[in-house]
Amino acid sequence: VAHPQRLLVLLERDLQPADVERVRGTMAGRGVESRLADEYEDTVLATTHHEISPESLDGLRAIKGVRRVVPMTTPHPLVSSRDHTASEVRVGAVGIGPRTFTLIAGPCAIETSEQSRAAWDAAAAAGATVLRGDLFKHRTSPYSFQGVGRAGLELLAEHRRRLGLPVVVEVLSPGQLELVADVVDMVRIGARNMQNRDLLLACGRARKPVMLKRGFTATIEEWLLAAETVASCGNLDIVLCERGIRTFEPSTRNTLDLSAIAVIRERCQLPIVVDPSHGTGHRRLVPSLALAAIAAGADGVMVDVHPRPDTALCDGPQALLPHELGELGAQLAALARFVERDVSPVGAAADDHDGGNVARLSRGPR
Amino acid sequence: VAHPQRLLVLLERDLQPADVERVRGTMAGRGVESRLADEYEDTVLATTHHEISPESLDGLRAIKGVRRVVPMTTPHPLVSSRDHTASEVRVGAVGIGPRTFTLIAGPCAIETSEQSRAAWDAAAAAGATVLRGDLFKHRTSPYSFQGVGRAGLELLAEHRRRLGLPVVVEVLSPGQLELVADVVDMVRIGARNMQNRDLLLACGRARKPVMLKRGFTATIEEWLLAAETVASCGNLDIVLCERGIRTFEPSTRNTLDLSAIAVIRERCQLPIVVDPSHGTGHRRLVPSLALAAIAAGADGVMVDVHPRPDTALCDGPQALLPHELGELGAQLAALARFVERDVSPVGAAADDHDGGNVARLSRGPR
Amino acid sequence: VAHPQRLLVLLERDLQPADVERVRGTMAGRGVESRLADEYEDTVLATTHHEISPESLDGLRAIKGVRRVVPMTTPHPLVSSRDHTASEVRVGAVGIGPRTFTLIAGPCAIETSEQSRAAWDAAAAAGATVLRGDLFKHRTSPYSFQGVGRAGLELLAEHRRRLGLPVVVEVLSPGQLELVADVVDMVRIGARNMQNRDLLLACGRARKPVMLKRGFTATIEEWLLAAETVASCGNLDIVLCERGIRTFEPSTRNTLDLSAIAVIRERCQLPIVVDPSHGTGHRRLVPSLALAAIAAGADGVMVDVHPRPDTALCDGPQALLPHELGELGAQLAALARFVERDVSPVGAAADDHDGGNVARLSRGPR
Amino acid sequence: VAHPQRLLVLLERDLQPADVERVRGTMAGRGVESRLADEYEDTVLATTHHEISPESLDGLRAIKGVRRVVPMTTPHPLVSSRDHTASEVRVGAVGIGPRTFTLIAGPCAIETSEQSRAAWDAAAAAGATVLRGDLFKHRTSPYSFQGVGRAGLELLAEHRRRLGLPVVVEVLSPGQLELVADVVDMVRIGARNMQNRDLLLACGRARKPVMLKRGFTATIEEWLLAAETVASCGNLDIVLCERGIRTFEPSTRNTLDLSAIAVIRERCQLPIVVDPSHGTGHRRLVPSLALAAIAAGADGVMVDVHPRPDTALCDGPQALLPHELGELGAQLAALARFVERDVSPVGAAADDHDGGNVARLSRGPR
Repeated sequence: VAHPQRLLVLLERDLQPADVERVRGTMAGRGVESRLADEYEDTVLATTHHEISPESLDGLRAIKGVRRVVPMTTPHPLVSSRDHTASEVRVGAVGIGPRTFTLIAGPCAIETSEQSRAAWDAAAAAGATVLRGDLFKHRTSPYSFQGVGRAGLELLAEHRRRLGLPVVVEVLSPGQLELVADVVDMVRIGARNMQNRDLLLACGRARKPVMLKRGFTATIEEWLLAAETVASCGNLDIVLCERGIRTFEPSTRNTLDLSAIAVIRERCQLPIVVDPSHGTGHRRLVPSLALAAIAAGADGVMVDVHPRPDTALCDGPQALLPHELGELGAQLAALARFVERDVSPVGAAADDHDGGNVARLSRGPR
Repeated sequence: VAHPQRLLVLLERDLQPADVERVRGTMAGRGVESRLADEYEDTVLATTHHEISPESLDGLRAIKGVRRVVPMTTPHPLVSSRDHTASEVRVGAVGIGPRTFTLIAGPCAIETSEQSRAAWDAAAAAGATVLRGDLFKHRTSPYSFQGVGRAGLELLAEHRRRLGLPVVVEVLSPGQLELVADVVDMVRIGARNMQNRDLLLACGRARKPVMLKRGFTATIEEWLLAAETVASCGNLDIVLCERGIRTFEPSTRNTLDLSAIAVIRERCQLPIVVDPSHGTGHRRLVPSLALAAIAAGADGVMVDVHPRPDTALCDGPQALLPHELGELGAQLAALARFVERDVSPVGAAADDHDGGNVARLSRGPR
Repeated sequence: VAHPQRLLVLLERDLQPADVERVRGTMAGRGVESRLADEYEDTVLATTHHEISPESLDGLRAIKGVRRVVPMTTPHPLVSSRDHTASEVRVGAVGIGPRTFTLIAGPCAIETSEQSRAAWDAAAAAGATVLRGDLFKHRTSPYSFQGVGRAGLELLAEHRRRLGLPVVVEVLSPGQLELVADVVDMVRIGARNMQNRDLLLACGRARKPVMLKRGFTATIEEWLLAAETVASCGNLDIVLCERGIRTFEPSTRNTLDLSAIAVIRERCQLPIVVDPSHGTGHRRLVPSLALAAIAAGADGVMVDVHPRPDTALCDGPQALLPHELGELGAQLAALARFVERDVSPVGAAADDHDGGNVARLSRGPR
Repeated sequence: VAHPQRLLVLLERDLQPADVERVRGTMAGRGVESRLADEYEDTVLATTHHEISPESLDGLRAIKGVRRVVPMTTPHPLVSSRDHTASEVRVGAVGIGPRTFTLIAGPCAIETSEQSRAAWDAAAAAGATVLRGDLFKHRTSPYSFQGVGRAGLELLAEHRRRLGLPVVVEVLSPGQLELVADVVDMVRIGARNMQNRDLLLACGRARKPVMLKRGFTATIEEWLLAAETVASCGNLDIVLCERGIRTFEPSTRNTLDLSAIAVIRERCQLPIVVDPSHGTGHRRLVPSLALAAIAAGADGVMVDVHPRPDTALCDGPQALLPHELGELGAQLAALARFVERDVSPVGAAADDHDGGNVARLSRGPR
């Protein structure tokens, strides 16, 4: 009996149209019909067939110009986890993934030279291996502080060089991608832009890792589809970031959904980090949730720090003071080691992982 | 005693930098300090002063190049309603506002020539005075139908001409604004893009009315701030559209928040319409909610219609059949007349409104 | 082929155990196995059979002691709407149902003799045909005003007699049912008690109409199952009351879910009224939503009124002033007549309904 | 200047009315006016005064018959945490509180003798120090399995004796409190009953520890007020249980709100445990969230176990298999020891806690 099958074929980047046609022709010669996905130019092919053997699948993968061939058994085949394997994303020299625990820290926004230096120094001292610090802020009001903008680029470049740590910043529009390209190691798509298709496509075409925050009203499935949208344009270096969803509870800015970690682990191979600063909105709650995130299986946490939070131009109440970040960094490192994750800056996990005699906590029953 | 006061000054569009400086200089000469709002180029000035008389305020308004001067007594002064007065937005020959009731109808998406013609004919027959029918669809999955794109432009232009009715379509990116400029009368910012700042700024700089849908997780205040963002770029022709918020209730696609109509009326002078098709997701629920929207005080409703909903490429279950739209159109017109709103295409409401002997329903207690 | 079938058999009230056994024996003789539902004593039998004809079904209905036999085709067969027919519930001389529109009004809580008299007079003057006014308040804090309790019974009795209108009050515990039995015509189960099983069972065994408010976090399906719980104990005189669900929107106390009206109408034959006072929490929003409720198809609305809301011991901000209720009452009556509902106190709808030439609004497409 | 002050005075249980009057007289003699709280009989007095010194406060506390005197500086003074100190609640020989970590496990419902024995054996083997297993289930449908009821009492008693562990069961009505009094060590108020005032008052008057689950739509503040309602009747032995709140996310039955742990710790001295079984609804997610709960600072977790979940009469998909519970128990114990909590059955924490050299994780910055 013939069972039709749908496949997703991701092509090598920057193929010429003639090459795309050649690939499709080769596939057609093997009985695989194809068409270009809507609006996705030369990058992705959706394909159907009446049945395909593992050997034929491997045959398709071997066609020159083909990057990946995955059966469309989920709505988001490129980011789906087959056999629950998590992957690692490289950000500069740092690997974010299943073998490491990554602390990302810095100011919510770059405000002044002194403020950002103090915040980044505190981050480095606390063991952060990736720095944050935004140039452009996505504010609800057009009259609020919108970030220092390109004026902060040099500052960012200087401290990145000085501290030797990779940097992640938010981009609000496709145009900003190019602007920050030389001074950042990862770009971030914010919660309010999780379904900004224009930005997703642009980040998908970029050659830079992307951190994709969950929209605060997005289901996990919508979040994965946003990640798939980035992936379908050719960029597979995606780190997910849970930062709370909108509920009726007023004690916290949002309700951090730590269940998402285990759900993501089942459905998706991408690394996931947690932002308890934006998720709770209150610095006093940050440590409890940061630690819970590791225990739940997160691959990292991202926290805000500010030398004088009460004068912050943006999100002051949720920023840790430098000494608080120092304490939390030590606690996070201790717990990360307990769950056998590597916390050294380089991200090269030790090789004796599986020989440990302490149960690796985050796996759950099989 | 001196009370400082914050003002918002909206300048005429396309002022030269020298003219902006001249305006600011004149203001400074009258004791009003000013600065340009972040990222808003030559259009908006935020200003403070130690106290300002009504006469001085009028004086500022009279400066050449000044378009509006409003005290910043709310977070969204440009769209705020002083004395609860609603304004009217012109879309082609149609006025959407407090004196009229506007039915906006058509297909969710343009699919084929036959399908869109049948849907638009049904809309016109049912009394719609504005047509909808999208070229670009904002889908959650990158592999779903994304709309016919620019291929539908000619179709849109043809039927707009044939039926003599203005058209509204969604734009997903700043680039699409120019693309559709010649064939549409109003552009729509979709729910998922309500906080897409890039798109809000572009629509704010455009010279085309904007329909701004409420994000399905946005508070009313965030919605008004998104409208203010459009307004602060110079475009004051904004129609709000309530389309449901995300809740735990699974019987409906979203929970239509009809309370928003009265809340908006208190805080904002912009017209508000309701989309019960996307708000409920089920055609059987559309009539009940469309009628409720009028009674609650909405200035219009927007509904999907499709000749064969079961074959629709997008949102079929919520589209009315042509004959259902016809019935609903008659009911809506009857109820609109009952609440003394004009339903004729031209939108010129009769002059004897206030002499009516039936209570105008939507006003509420004073 | 044999298709097993599940039936629900509701027995006459107060059958003796021997009679129950006789009924079950008769059924068994006809091939219908049965058992008593858990915890439901002598009132309900769940039954299965391998196939049953309409004639056999009528045969079961004719057994002495059997009150109703319904196939279990929904999770809530007793309150389900077959053929979308709505039923009417009698409260004193008033019929709440599809032919009438009922205004229920009065104070949120009885506070003093003067306050409650003024509120009830305002209610009667505004056209209310059912009075409200609680003795026991379900407060979140144990230290808030808990109602005047039994001290208010005489007051309630006196004004009910004086105004000649039926009364509905909330009961918080099974014990209060007996306490209020002589002076009220309908008891109300509040939102916080919608899943208080003890109270549902007690109201189900009572011989008094029950108004069942939707829990502010309950799905519509859970609400219907709570109604079914009351019905399964023998009390079929249930009026549903939508009063808003909990969402993230802070402008209103809750988000009134008017979609629930059309959803309920599809699934359930019980009348449904709407409480815009508790649903919005702000008196200025009450009229807009009350009118929307009628247009959406509600069978009535319940509103709070207070002579001096700023001094109210409970929920003052949502209570209308007497003159506001008067205005609203006139608007509601006008709109109710427009949709061809009877608004006279006795509830006897005119017979010429279906001959009207104005579309009955709330029906929706068929 | 005179500052009035409000106090809450909790009396000894079972005072005679004459003794209550004597206490109030003594207080009046010291300038403290008082009245009995509404509906709270002889147990609680609310009091005001124009200013009170620490010495006078101690003087009031020394009056015979007075149990506690607390200033009303929060809406829930009896359960509030002064100086963030957590208290311990004794359940049989087990102490639930800041020095221990308690695993509560067993079947969701007692179904059969074999099933409950297997589940309890698995619980004990996994290190549980408190057993669960309900007699009465609070089901949404009246036709679902409602629990074995009193038929399970003997079974419960037998295995409690055999395993030597205390037991917690849910009570649905005041009447069930007496029924289970001899065979359980703690009663549980379920999520749907969190605002069942009748049940809260009855549990408050009982002499048995109470586990109070958070309503799945309750704010943290409402939850604390429900606890205060229990406390105000004299029962201060309350354990809070977070079990998820209702959100729009469909991947999990509810969204477990682990932020609540840190929020509760700031506002309240009561112990808090977490129920990841009911909170997530999927056994695969339970371990991740159980571990996160400890790291976040929870005093215990409660999990369902079932020998054959696919045949369970209630909530099977969330029950762990016995061997899964065994693995999880080992992981929980290891992590609990890491955060310096005692996991031995007797609950007597070692005395050298504060000398440890590993940061106690859950405290957060000071």
